[in-house]
Amino acid sequence: MRAVDVIIKKRNKQELERKEIEFFVQGFTGGEIPDYQVSAWAMAVLLNGMTARETTDLTLSMAHSGEILDLSGAVDVAVDKHSTGGVGDKTSLVVLPVVAACGLPVGKMSGRGLGFSGGTLDKLESIPGYRVDLSTDEFKKQLVAIGIVLTGQSLDLAPADGKLYALRDVTGTVQSIPLIASSIMSKKIASGAQAILLDVKTGLGAFMQTLEEARALASLMISIGELAGRRVVALLSDMNQPLGEAVGNALEVREALETLHGRGPADFREHCLVVSAHMLVLGGRAVDLGEARKSAQAVLDGGSAFQKFQALVTAQGGDVSFVDRPEKFPEAQIVEAVEAPRGGILSRVNARIIGEAAVALGAGRARKGDPVDHAVGLLIPRKVGQKVRKGETLFTVYANDPARLAEARENVLAAFGWSDTPVDPLPLFYDMG
Amino acid sequence: MRAVDVIIKKRNKQELERKEIEFFVQGFTGGEIPDYQVSAWAMAVLLNGMTARETTDLTLSMAHSGEILDLSGAVDVAVDKHSTGGVGDKTSLVVLPVVAACGLPVGKMSGRGLGFSGGTLDKLESIPGYRVDLSTDEFKKQLVAIGIVLTGQSLDLAPADGKLYALRDVTGTVQSIPLIASSIMSKKIASGAQAILLDVKTGLGAFMQTLEEARALASLMISIGELAGRRVVALLSDMNQPLGEAVGNALEVREALETLHGRGPADFREHCLVVSAHMLVLGGRAVDLGEARKSAQAVLDGGSAFQKFQALVTAQGGDVSFVDRPEKFPEAQIVEAVEAPRGGILSRVNARIIGEAAVALGAGRARKGDPVDHAVGLLIPRKVGQKVRKGETLFTVYANDPARLAEARENVLAAFGWSDTPVDPLPLFYDMG
Repeated sequence: MRAVDVIIKKRNKQELERKEIEFFVQGFTGGEIPDYQVSAWAMAVLLNGMTARETTDLTLSMAHSGEILDLSGAVDVAVDKHSTGGVGDKTSLVVLPVVAACGLPVGKMSGRGLGFSGGTLDKLESIPGYRVDLSTDEFKKQLVAIGIVLTGQSLDLAPADGKLYALRDVTGTVQSIPLIASSIMSKKIASGAQAILLDVKTGLGAFMQTLEEARALASLMISIGELAGRRVVALLSDMNQPLGEAVGNALEVREALETLHGRGPADFREHCLVVSAHMLVLGGRAVDLGEARKSAQAVLDGGSAFQKFQALVTAQGGDVSFVDRPEKFPEAQIVEAVEAPRGGILSRVNARIIGEAAVALGAGRARKGDPVDHAVGLLIPRKVGQKVRKGETLFTVYANDPARLAEARENVLAAFGWSDTPVDPLPLFYDMG
Repeated sequence: MRAVDVIIKKRNKQELERKEIEFFVQGFTGGEIPDYQVSAWAMAVLLNGMTARETTDLTLSMAHSGEILDLSGAVDVAVDKHSTGGVGDKTSLVVLPVVAACGLPVGKMSGRGLGFSGGTLDKLESIPGYRVDLSTDEFKKQLVAIGIVLTGQSLDLAPADGKLYALRDVTGTVQSIPLIASSIMSKKIASGAQAILLDVKTGLGAFMQTLEEARALASLMISIGELAGRRVVALLSDMNQPLGEAVGNALEVREALETLHGRGPADFREHCLVVSAHMLVLGGRAVDLGEARKSAQAVLDGGSAFQKFQALVTAQGGDVSFVDRPEKFPEAQIVEAVEAPRGGILSRVNARIIGEAAVALGAGRARKGDPVDHAVGLLIPRKVGQKVRKGETLFTVYANDPARLAEARENVLAAFGWSDTPVDPLPLFYDMG
């Protein structure tokens, strides 16, 4: 078999056989197939597509390109979650402690911020000392000991995906639904997941901008799950406006802590309750979503979810005094409340613009490896459909540089759309259609 | 400007601007844009296409990626020819001497065999000592001195094309009409051509298998010529069956010598007369095709075209005694005439199968850099539409290995299709439609 023939077959819109996909994945993992062949193949896949069967074979080949984490000694059902990424999405920081406090042990490997979208690892690193580089051995031990782990992706898991992703990023081949689906699912399968809750974001501040694309991605991942023998539930959630109010690393951790104390923004709390309930049902800790939701509410309002988060931070070497006294988080040097330039009903709070403004303030990275400023960001306590009076605070900028502050102020003002007539609020979730 | 954005633009089916194409070509020539980005871009071009304007910009950028040969001191009109490649295509060996003997100085850089298709350089190297590595300085001096040059492509000309072609070959991105057209035209423009005769082959033994594809390629190259200020004439010629009778390097040189003596197969002689006539008109050496054809016939039948070929071989260091006494060419160890297994009218003489059989005998190369056996090949004095009696010689195999001979005999027999009713002969040329 020759790599060029596999490329030509996909270029000619033909379906690749399992053995061809395995040959290709093993070849690029082992370095026998050079990058320039992999990128030509990725472009052919992007433009000509892949069937669910091909995507499943690609997913399983990538999952098996390295170690497969075996959690059978640590948990009875390994449940995982994945969000496709958005703005203000600090869901894992709340959902994992909630689920663990309800008695379902859960370990998760998260990623870093990408483009306008934040990453759980960057948020966690706002807490001094918090380690995101647990070994798989430490992962399993901690999961058994306290029932919760939240760390970075191990390099030993799905190395083919890591290699392919790095190449896709620089060759214009990120936006392919089969490649996105297989990337997500290969990492989940490699990290031992038996049941997976997918939070597929759609809208201005998501990678899947249209509901149609988000549905296609969700359906494909459900098919992969079925074909690969994993239980998969997919939610479609709105990402036209930010989730919650805080955008930026330490600001988001503080909002998550508020939520773990039974408070926090209503939309974010509701989002976390829905995601947690699905995970509890997947993990067999509740018979239905209603019962699961009640348990989740109870651990949020009763304080045990917060205690789980304390235990998590302590176990991973973080300074738990920051969790106990969030005012310890370093605040940005300049905090400016920006007033509404007019009155009216909000018709748009563009999450993409807000995400990009947060990155420009220093909360995210322009390129891989850039440092992140944990203190900066935005607080936007406004949602589509709400009435705002002229002169009221529309949002607050947290900056460490006056020029960047001015830029953020101007850009974020443009994120708001106004109406003189009532506007329906955005739903938190969409149905699967 | 970033290479990834240029890739994404083409991936999204958008038209690239001239400055984007120039940036990309300069980047990959200079090594700033890595191969994996170039191959992803090439696949996007193959699948999404390019306009004539984009292809012209690509052609000119590649032509200007190195030196542009200036022939203004050597000739008054620099005329060049290009064949897209076929089986038994030894046209340059006859046309160049004919044209030069008619008083139009002509210098040409040729290529090597590729896949089932032969290459002029491999044929010329059958003549001991013949140099195909003239410097551009030697090229110009010889053109002035004797009015004819036939050598290899200089590495200094259109280096971007060389680099891109090498990558296309291993990434499944050869079969793109814009990429083929720009590759051909960039080399011609870099080698100083002001007027170009294109011989676009179509059929089983050509890279463009359908007339439609061949017409599209020819039209695109004519458009590039117009946009780039070059005069271009394109012929569409048949390559369903081999051109002439000989396939294989020394066998083809001998057939060319026969033709230069005013003999040779009728189809090949006619093909050479048509191509030569067009070049003479392009070069201003004849007022119309009729007059040009008469001149070409005269130099073939009168011996001056043969003398030009002698002068060419002598100037480039070849042993001219081989030209004078072709029986000096080493003959293959095994020469076997294969009889027709049945009688009938030939409905097919598949050039592709015959070209591949010649390569398998050793006349071509399985991979770049492989050695070529100049003595082996096939002689096929049969054309579609001819009547053959059972037991007559259908073709002759020239081999240096009994196993390869047996394989060639079997494969080439399968190249023939038979009919019991009359079959029209194939045309030599098709119209441009």
